[in-house]
Amino acid sequence: MSIKFTVTERDGTSLARNGILELAHGSMETPAFMPVGTNGSVKAISHQKLEEMGVPLILGNTYHLYLRPGTEVIDAYGGLHQFSSWKGNILTDSGGFQVFSLATFRKITEEGVRFRSHIDGSYHELTPEKVVGIQNSLNSDIAMVLDVCTPPDIEYREALKALEITTAWAKRSLKEWQLHDPAPGRALFPILQGNFYKDLRQRSAEELLPLDFPGVAVGGLSVGEPFPLFLEMLHHTGELLPPEKPHYLMGIGTPEYILAAVENGIDLFDCVFPTRIARNGSVFTPRGVMALKNARFEKDTGPIDSECDCTACRRYSRAYIRHLFKAKEILGPMLATEHNIHFLMRMTRNIRTAIRNSAFREYKEAFLDEYRGKHT
Amino acid sequence: MSIKFTVTERDGTSLARNGILELAHGSMETPAFMPVGTNGSVKAISHQKLEEMGVPLILGNTYHLYLRPGTEVIDAYGGLHQFSSWKGNILTDSGGFQVFSLATFRKITEEGVRFRSHIDGSYHELTPEKVVGIQNSLNSDIAMVLDVCTPPDIEYREALKALEITTAWAKRSLKEWQLHDPAPGRALFPILQGNFYKDLRQRSAEELLPLDFPGVAVGGLSVGEPFPLFLEMLHHTGELLPPEKPHYLMGIGTPEYILAAVENGIDLFDCVFPTRIARNGSVFTPRGVMALKNARFEKDTGPIDSECDCTACRRYSRAYIRHLFKAKEILGPMLATEHNIHFLMRMTRNIRTAIRNSAFREYKEAFLDEYRGKHT
Ligand SMILES: [Zn+2]
Ligand SMILES: [Zn+2]
Repeated sequence: MSIKFTVTERDGTSLARNGILELAHGSMETPAFMPVGTNGSVKAISHQKLEEMGVPLILGNTYHLYLRPGTEVIDAYGGLHQFSSWKGNILTDSGGFQVFSLATFRKITEEGVRFRSHIDGSYHELTPEKVVGIQNSLNSDIAMVLDVCTPPDIEYREALKALEITTAWAKRSLKEWQLHDPAPGRALFPILQGNFYKDLRQRSAEELLPLDFPGVAVGGLSVGEPFPLFLEMLHHTGELLPPEKPHYLMGIGTPEYILAAVENGIDLFDCVFPTRIARNGSVFTPRGVMALKNARFEKDTGPIDSECDCTACRRYSRAYIRHLFKAKEILGPMLATEHNIHFLMRMTRNIRTAIRNSAFREYKEAFLDEYRGKHT
Repeated sequence: MSIKFTVTERDGTSLARNGILELAHGSMETPAFMPVGTNGSVKAISHQKLEEMGVPLILGNTYHLYLRPGTEVIDAYGGLHQFSSWKGNILTDSGGFQVFSLATFRKITEEGVRFRSHIDGSYHELTPEKVVGIQNSLNSDIAMVLDVCTPPDIEYREALKALEITTAWAKRSLKEWQLHDPAPGRALFPILQGNFYKDLRQRSAEELLPLDFPGVAVGGLSVGEPFPLFLEMLHHTGELLPPEKPHYLMGIGTPEYILAAVENGIDLFDCVFPTRIARNGSVFTPRGVMALKNARFEKDTGPIDSECDCTACRRYSRAYIRHLFKAKEILGPMLATEHNIHFLMRMTRNIRTAIRNSAFREYKEAFLDEYRGKHT
């Protein structure tokens, strides 16, 4: 197998488990949150800060990096690690989600997807083979197959069609991947789809999981559906996943969703939300999300979170960071971003400790009691 | 005297000199460049980076800080140092320049200046006494008197009127300053004006310099006039300055201007330009300013400046930083800002070494030969 994954501890009371994932750019503990570095940079934070926080894996967006700077530039460096000077691991998505959410025009055929760039309106085509090729250029530690993403409110027939194409593309992707003899420590993951139809989720699992992939991603959840529906589909899907392989749930990264994901056996997750809300002045605290622009922090000399030892909390007050946001100073987003990533790094560390102690459910309940008790 | 300034070395071939300036928040070597922290934050760089680069003094804008967050908030902290968590020295300007350049309406009387905030249109009045009071709230290590700033193309009569008010305000400011018994290590500087009329510059010096100020600022230069006129007025003004006191030239901070300033006996200078152009992708190099967005850096794997050991140059390539700017990633401004400040810190260190070796003119000529040889 191209990468090594070892489940080291199981919670016992849920599907939650700890693991060690060994990739080309280092070993890492799971469950783990991946900050999103869309263009090869996690927005508003330096590589050094991420390293100091112990972030072992960031996500890059194939769609964005393919359009800009393009593989020709990345190839001149031999990959995204060298181009961006990121020494840790990189997971890249397939571009599918962005084609469906950002591109101003798209047309899917069995061959691939044709779309217009959201940057300059130019036409492009992505095929499963081409997406593997781009991710080989990027030298991603974990690459994703091209998939068809669907919104939460579509008809069964449409969801079925998307699923069939996704399966066919996954097979072509794997063939292309194996053809280029990937280096050890690199892996390609298929993406489980099926929209919000349980039998389609099951069918997706039955079609993709027997194939020779060393891990699996779950797509098409947390796309705007109500939280209870997310939970129901996650629970249903979680039980379909092969216990010995790493499980990646795409697009989630807030405390409630992370806890639900881990409880259902998820090992990896990513989301733009924590860094996006940070740039708007909202920060995670043990007692909920805090909007720093709020007038009541005007003279608040306390830190964002007295339990946090990130730079923002060790050195600065809520009032000063609020002032930075009001004055549109870049240091505001810089500090809030560092805090939010730091918060999730600490939270996932605590989750792993709880699993080690077979106490995940207690941890989860205690966390949520405090988190939901008072949204400051 | 409220602060201590010691001239330690003189170049001999010019007015250039090295000094030690002892302020409430630490001693520092001069000549020195002050990065501008308008709102109590140098844009796009963390305090820690500034400290690592050895920046001993930053500038804050009284106008901005008075409008937002306001002295009531700053007072809750006992000053700008505690509010912003900046441990080094802070010089604040008087707000005069911003009232003249930013406010949407202004009216000068002998009493003071009435203006409308550029932020919310609200009316405010600044008097010399009030400006001293604000800077006492800020606890500025070096404070400035309120002055009347004039553009480079005004009539003699108008320049004379501005000068007379400036002198009267300086006297009132000093009286107010002494009334509040400022702590050791804090100082108030008057601002020499006189527009581009040499006799008015001389008169300003004759009126202000005999007063009991421990240093002096030169205002009204580098306000849009041609470089030769700047040089002529700087040379004329430089010879009027008392050799034993520190000299601050307001609003200059590019290599050519810094060299001219030091040559004419200037010890301190500040400018938004180095950090402003950085946020737009332009960086200083020994061979001139480099616009990183230029297409020819698309695959340039070299650093911005191979002689520089800032984070940007040690870790990243021109191509990657260019990509960050093209993709509007905040890390671009962060890296370019760090580089430009680092460049000026290194340059002023080299200037001090040259003065120590009585070789300032040689240094200046060698620097400019390379700098102007090829604008890359
Ligand atoms: Zn924090
Ligand atoms: Zn540099």
